[in-house]
Amino acid sequence: MSDAKKDIRALVFDVFGTVVDWRTSISRQVAEFGASYGVDADWNQFADDWRAGYHAGMAKVNAGEDEWKIVDQIHRERLDVLLEQYGFPEIDENELVHFNKAWHRLDGWPDSTVGLTRLKSKFVVCSLSNGNVALLTNMAKYANLPWDAVLSAELAGKYKPHPLAYQRTAELLGFQRDQVMLVAAHNSDLRGAVSAGLKAALVTRPEEFGDAKQPDLEPEPDFAYFAKDFHDLADQLGCA
Amino acid sequence: MSDAKKDIRALVFDVFGTVVDWRTSISRQVAEFGASYGVDADWNQFADDWRAGYHAGMAKVNAGEDEWKIVDQIHRERLDVLLEQYGFPEIDENELVHFNKAWHRLDGWPDSTVGLTRLKSKFVVCSLSNGNVALLTNMAKYANLPWDAVLSAELAGKYKPHPLAYQRTAELLGFQRDQVMLVAAHNSDLRGAVSAGLKAALVTRPEEFGDAKQPDLEPEPDFAYFAKDFHDLADQLGCA
Repeated sequence: MSDAKKDIRALVFDVFGTVVDWRTSISRQVAEFGASYGVDADWNQFADDWRAGYHAGMAKVNAGEDEWKIVDQIHRERLDVLLEQYGFPEIDENELVHFNKAWHRLDGWPDSTVGLTRLKSKFVVCSLSNGNVALLTNMAKYANLPWDAVLSAELAGKYKPHPLAYQRTAELLGFQRDQVMLVAAHNSDLRGAVSAGLKAALVTRPEEFGDAKQPDLEPEPDFAYFAKDFHDLADQLGCA
Repeated sequence: MSDAKKDIRALVFDVFGTVVDWRTSISRQVAEFGASYGVDADWNQFADDWRAGYHAGMAKVNAGEDEWKIVDQIHRERLDVLLEQYGFPEIDENELVHFNKAWHRLDGWPDSTVGLTRLKSKFVVCSLSNGNVALLTNMAKYANLPWDAVLSAELAGKYKPHPLAYQRTAELLGFQRDQVMLVAAHNSDLRGAVSAGLKAALVTRPEEFGDAKQPDLEPEPDFAYFAKDFHDLADQLGCA
């Protein structure tokens, strides 16, 4: 066994796309929301547009062009723009607050809960998402994700792929960086983890983006593991 | 129902003494450790002495007399003093690191796991301990504590009863302060929570200190709930 595969104590997980199917979950909720206001549109596109605002908002924070803001706030700022763009009428503030939390109500992939439970028997399993702690905590209850701990880039004050987001998580868990492995469906995130001193496992999620974007299906040479889902990863890691 | 009992969304728990029986767990582990080095002593007293260092170490941090240090480090500094005082021989560093984590291996009270599970059906349940995140995460695995999130004063950089420790936890969970209730066996901690704007529930743990110290058995007037254990609290809060 190569060194890269040894002495792993904690598995930290990217969440959006890796653990939960954000696109199907969001487009379903926004379709219901649209119907209640008599608005019709391509709701997969709405989901993709909303998601795009998330990346842009985080990039501004990491570049120092914007002060720290949590993902709930980034989602809300983008939502306000999209609702106007898609022709929604004016909406009650309480309802907007609730709807913006659609991102707290995302369904896991079919293998997520049972796969995490298997992995948890041998490793600390922990979220490492750019989503804020409240979002991840509510999502874990909604989607039945059995985290040992709910950690987030929020606790570093920098978004992935900034090295501090990964390093702060290892520090909070009390492990050396190379005892912690990021599990993600996205090579860019995994590259960030490797650059920060963590190990990396690509788990493919071929349906994440529908037909809107190519998923990452091939690992890079410095990733320690490559699996087709959490069961496959649990098998490779020797979990019961 | 008084306002103080309404609109509670999250229960955040003091851990040492409230959720886990630190004194019995520590004295058992230190007795085994002592036996392996041929040392005999009053191990309840050792546990109390170790615990006393915890309070003193945190007070220095909050007073600004010491820089931020996590509870694992505070425990270790105190342990080094006590081992010498109790006549232990020189001990291998790896073994000391492991033994210092005795505080990660504490047993829950008999009602802790099942009571938290009941409370979790209706509320976000989350640790709010001065123990560091790694300690609490490992303890949750060891004692089967089904937290929705593992939060700690570590994430505020101030120890309870500093107001920021309570307020940061409410903020990270995405709730207003008065939507969050601290559950604790210690009136001083609960007073801190109330001063910081949270609600408070005293759950008595009459056996926490053995015969070394009187436990708190009577609530103060501004505590919202008073229960004899987590089952009683779950009953009062209408949990199935």
